[in-house]
Amino acid sequence: VARILITCGPTREPLDPVRYLSNSSSGRTGLLLAEEALRRGHRVDLVLGPVGLAPPAGARVIPVVTCAEMLAACREAHPRSDAVIGAAAVCDFRPRAASTEKRRRGAPWLLELVPNPDILEDLGKRKGPRVHAGFALETESEPDAAIAHAREKLEKKRLDWVVINSPEALGGEEGFYLLLGREGPARNLGRLRKSELASALLEAVENSLKRSAPEPDKSDRV
Amino acid sequence: VARILITCGPTREPLDPVRYLSNSSSGRTGLLLAEEALRRGHRVDLVLGPVGLAPPAGARVIPVVTCAEMLAACREAHPRSDAVIGAAAVCDFRPRAASTEKRRRGAPWLLELVPNPDILEDLGKRKGPRVHAGFALETESEPDAAIAHAREKLEKKRLDWVVINSPEALGGEEGFYLLLGREGPARNLGRLRKSELASALLEAVENSLKRSAPEPDKSDRV
Repeated sequence: VARILITCGPTREPLDPVRYLSNSSSGRTGLLLAEEALRRGHRVDLVLGPVGLAPPAGARVIPVVTCAEMLAACREAHPRSDAVIGAAAVCDFRPRAASTEKRRRGAPWLLELVPNPDILEDLGKRKGPRVHAGFALETESEPDAAIAHAREKLEKKRLDWVVINSPEALGGEEGFYLLLGREGPARNLGRLRKSELASALLEAVENSLKRSAPEPDKSDRV
Repeated sequence: VARILITCGPTREPLDPVRYLSNSSSGRTGLLLAEEALRRGHRVDLVLGPVGLAPPAGARVIPVVTCAEMLAACREAHPRSDAVIGAAAVCDFRPRAASTEKRRRGAPWLLELVPNPDILEDLGKRKGPRVHAGFALETESEPDAAIAHAREKLEKKRLDWVVINSPEALGGEEGFYLLLGREGPARNLGRLRKSELASALLEAVENSLKRSAPEPDKSDRV
C-alpha cells in the first residue's frame, strides 16, 4: 500500500473578478487514476482544480483554483507521499497582475502573461526515493519530435514515467498514448479508454515502487 | 405560449490548442431560466456554452464554445423568437489570433486581446416587437454607479429588462439582485435563490410580452 499524490483538472488564472485563463481539461484522466489507485488499495491525496465531475469516494481531496494554490497543496502533501502522478493540466502562464475591478469592454487589451512555476519540476527537486509520473501533451505531428521533447521533460523534471498524449484526448473518453520510462524506448500503448490508461500507468508506478527500497527514506534529499 | 431564446454559460476563446480565455459562470442561472420558462409552458431555444450541468429536458439545445459561435446561433434562432434572455457570461475579449501549435513555456507572453461583438447589442438592432432581457454584472461598490452603468447598457442594447448582479453570485446558489426596466427606478429584489430570480425575471418578461401586440410582427424591423 502506497500513498499517492495525484494532481487533477485544470487551474484557472484570474485576469479580473470575472475573467480567467485556463486549460482544456475535463479532469477525467486524473479522477480515473485516483479511482484506480484506490481500487488497488493505495491511499490517495487528490489535489483537484475546478472540474465538473465528482472525485471518487475515499480520496482525500484538496480543492484548488490557481497554479500557485496547486503548488502549495502539493508541497504540503509531498513529504508523506510515496508516489506522485501529475495529471493536472496546469495553466502554465498567468496574467502578471489581476485587476480587482472588471475591465470594461472597449479598446484592445495588451495582456502580459508570465510563466507559472512547473509543479512537477518543483517537486522533482525534493524527489528523494519517490516515484514521479507526469503527462506530456504534444501537438507535433512528428512522433519522434514528440518523444524527444517528452524525454527532455522527463530528465528536467526527474520523472520516472511520462505519458505522451495529444489534444484529441481532451474532454473525450479515450486517447492515443505512448508511455516513456527512464530506460528503453517509448512504449506505444495505442488507442485506449482513459480507464485503461489509468490502469497501465498505475501498473508502471507500482513496478517502480517495488524496485525502490522497502523502507523508503522520505527525507527531502535532493 | 412564447418562444424564448436563452443564452447560457460562459464562452471560451482559444489561445492555442489547449489554452483559452473564459469567464466565471456555472451556467446555473441560465439553466434555471430555461427550466422556469418551460414550466410556464413556453418553448425554449437554449444556446449553451460549455457548462458542467445538464440542460433541462424539453429545451432545444444549441451547444457552442466561442462568442462567435454563440452569436451565429443566436442570429439563426432570433427571427422566430418572441423574447430573448441573455444569461450567458460571454467572454467579451478574445485573442487576436489563435495559434495552431501549443506554445512552449518560457519567456513572458504579450497577448493581444480584441473586444468580442456584444451579442445582445447585435440582436437589439433587429429587435422588432420582441422582449429582450439581459444581465449586468457590476463590480462597483457604489449602487448608484452600478445602476447608472446598467441603464446605459439597457439603452445601448435596447433591452426591456436588465438584472444587475455582482460577482458573489458566480458559481453559487444565490445572489443579490436589482431589476431595472425601461421605465421607473431599479427594483431591489434583495438576496434571492437563483430559482427565485428566474421566476421574477420570467414574470417581468411575460408582462412585457402581454403589453406587446397579440400578433407580433416578427419581421426584422429596426
